[in-house]
Amino acid sequence: MIGNSGANFSRRLKDFPSSPIRKLVKYADEAKKRGKEVYHLNIGQPDIPAPDYALKNFAYRIPEVVAYTHSYGLEDLRRLWAEYYKDIGIDIDYSNLVVTTGGSEAIMFALFSIADFGDNAIVFEPVYTNYLGFAEFCGVELRAYPLDVRNGFHFDNLNGMEKLVDSKTRAIIVVNPNNPTGVVLSREEVELIVEFARRHNLWIIADEVYKEFVFEGDFVSFLSTGYEKVIVVDSLSKLFSMCGARVGALVSHVREILEGVLKLGQARLCPPLLGQLLAIEVFKDKDSYRKYLKQVKDEYRLRRDVVWQESEGSSEIKIYKKPEGAFYVVAALDVENAEEFAKWMLTDFDRDGRTVMVAPAAGFYVSDRGKDEVRIAYVLNSDKLRNAIKILKEGVRVYKNRG
Amino acid sequence: MIGNSGANFSRRLKDFPSSPIRKLVKYADEAKKRGKEVYHLNIGQPDIPAPDYALKNFAYRIPEVVAYTHSYGLEDLRRLWAEYYKDIGIDIDYSNLVVTTGGSEAIMFALFSIADFGDNAIVFEPVYTNYLGFAEFCGVELRAYPLDVRNGFHFDNLNGMEKLVDSKTRAIIVVNPNNPTGVVLSREEVELIVEFARRHNLWIIADEVYKEFVFEGDFVSFLSTGYEKVIVVDSLSKLFSMCGARVGALVSHVREILEGVLKLGQARLCPPLLGQLLAIEVFKDKDSYRKYLKQVKDEYRLRRDVVWQESEGSSEIKIYKKPEGAFYVVAALDVENAEEFAKWMLTDFDRDGRTVMVAPAAGFYVSDRGKDEVRIAYVLNSDKLRNAIKILKEGVRVYKNRG
Repeated sequence: MIGNSGANFSRRLKDFPSSPIRKLVKYADEAKKRGKEVYHLNIGQPDIPAPDYALKNFAYRIPEVVAYTHSYGLEDLRRLWAEYYKDIGIDIDYSNLVVTTGGSEAIMFALFSIADFGDNAIVFEPVYTNYLGFAEFCGVELRAYPLDVRNGFHFDNLNGMEKLVDSKTRAIIVVNPNNPTGVVLSREEVELIVEFARRHNLWIIADEVYKEFVFEGDFVSFLSTGYEKVIVVDSLSKLFSMCGARVGALVSHVREILEGVLKLGQARLCPPLLGQLLAIEVFKDKDSYRKYLKQVKDEYRLRRDVVWQESEGSSEIKIYKKPEGAFYVVAALDVENAEEFAKWMLTDFDRDGRTVMVAPAAGFYVSDRGKDEVRIAYVLNSDKLRNAIKILKEGVRVYKNRG
Repeated sequence: MIGNSGANFSRRLKDFPSSPIRKLVKYADEAKKRGKEVYHLNIGQPDIPAPDYALKNFAYRIPEVVAYTHSYGLEDLRRLWAEYYKDIGIDIDYSNLVVTTGGSEAIMFALFSIADFGDNAIVFEPVYTNYLGFAEFCGVELRAYPLDVRNGFHFDNLNGMEKLVDSKTRAIIVVNPNNPTGVVLSREEVELIVEFARRHNLWIIADEVYKEFVFEGDFVSFLSTGYEKVIVVDSLSKLFSMCGARVGALVSHVREILEGVLKLGQARLCPPLLGQLLAIEVFKDKDSYRKYLKQVKDEYRLRRDVVWQESEGSSEIKIYKKPEGAFYVVAALDVENAEEFAKWMLTDFDRDGRTVMVAPAAGFYVSDRGKDEVRIAYVLNSDKLRNAIKILKEGVRVYKNRG
């Protein structure tokens, strides 16, 4: 009973970007049906279980009436989460933190709150692809400040960024630690951004969902810079391997933003109760979650090192600087079109029945750069990951020499 | 650390409507702090537990890795949900149904998919208030076709609706059974709407989340009318008293809509896993959920009758026609400004320490009509409800005779 109506859809639905992370999924599904094993390095879905003490306690605390929560989220959760912030040296009150349906919703609320239809915001590219989607959703144009794979996506200055600013520029969007690049901004880089935002009276939308996964240097939150026009996007998806719980947060010192966001929150009623209850169980036991985070961080560091070692000196996979955080890296491959290659890996290639799925990085760019790059998410254990990187290198070689 | 930045917010955040359901919450909170008991007839949060068999089974099925699901939702859930549709005589395939984060997200996806910024849609007013919010979110103007409390919000024709249509009109939005009015459309009314939509090549966005709660007449789904340009908003929040689970659906026969919605779905990654797992447990046992739905419907019918009996012939609370479905009714009160009155009930009135909170109906209107009306949600048991309606009547009397 599915028809083709030839009906008139919105232009914005047609224009809406496809996810570079998920657009090749059908080829992966087909490969699996043909019996191939696919190593998924395309999506930031960790293989790590959520904290077991929290899962166990949660099972006993499922309420009879699965009711709406406050549109801001459960107060207990907000208070525990704010305590967590204080523990890591960021001074916020629970009233500064609003629970959202994943970090995704916090992104959307932030963009809507500070920009009108037709306004624009500056992003460093490559940028977490979902910003492209939410910008389209909110009718906000993204203007790309280009970073370069050969500098490991770092910067010494923001030369040329002025040119992106006009009367409709409302914000700079920063992801730190970065998805997709794995970069952790230095204090100097953070200060350059703050100084620029201050000069142009811009909001900073700072996506800090990977803040616990920093392997080199220190994490500097934009909430701690003294600059007020900051909206932080947070999420428990990655920290506690609970992506499916859809529990995120929007954090700001600015009361008008929090009051405005309440109206947006009321329109969608509330964030998911069950995920919030699980999150409460996670946060209730500080010793346990700290231990958990340490273990997880050590595991990601190990994996980061595997990717680095296996690609070091390789001509097929070029990573110019060891990524400092999160669990991603953008690598330049020795191919012209990484999307074609990534698809070919699923449709035409395997080694002993195994192949690798990566996310073409072009979808993380606003401009048409990055065509030879891919994002690698190191969400598999070291053995599988090592094998996956070997297969990827081999794939590049075979792809280049194919008929 | 909350400051007032005097910063530049978006106009649309300023313009965003406050929820009439929740805007008086602070007065209710204050009343409770002063020791008053507040009967909440303002919000559609049932007091009824979710199906207990499902809650129990769910507790044993919480996975270790709380992972993202497919952006369309779990296939198992979609298949079970589609079977439910077939059982109630609506022929859809599981591929026609996309799981969303509550019905709220389905509303947003539907509006975004068929209307561009600056387009418009026709609503019957009063309309479920959250359409006002999501229309603002999507930059879609709502044009109100007025229904009248004295006709019990029914209609014999759509005279005058033509005048609302211009080149930017994309859809008619219909909530059936209706929130806030409790109206169930007759087959003739459904056909009038379809005929109008067909004539003007409009989409019908049909919100059918209360379809199981029909006490008089038959529920006619817009999916069964033969008209193709239909997008149905569905939700399990009310049917199974799992509002906090945030599990809804968008249903359509039109493939391009489903494909487009996948892109929107990917941007926000997935609907909540835990709520979906609970929903699977609900749907897995058809005999049990059918029994549950029958009990719940009988309970709401009983409550509907209590509201009707207690207000019948009253000059304070005027309900002109017995509502046929859902668990709401819009009543005209013998006051000029129902919002002022509703606030006064919380701040200044009680009977034996008890008062009542209702939702001012003006917030359900696009135009400035409805100022003397309130929405009553009958989400309390019959005894409490009877008492609440008595207190409400008494409140109106005292309010009118106050100094």
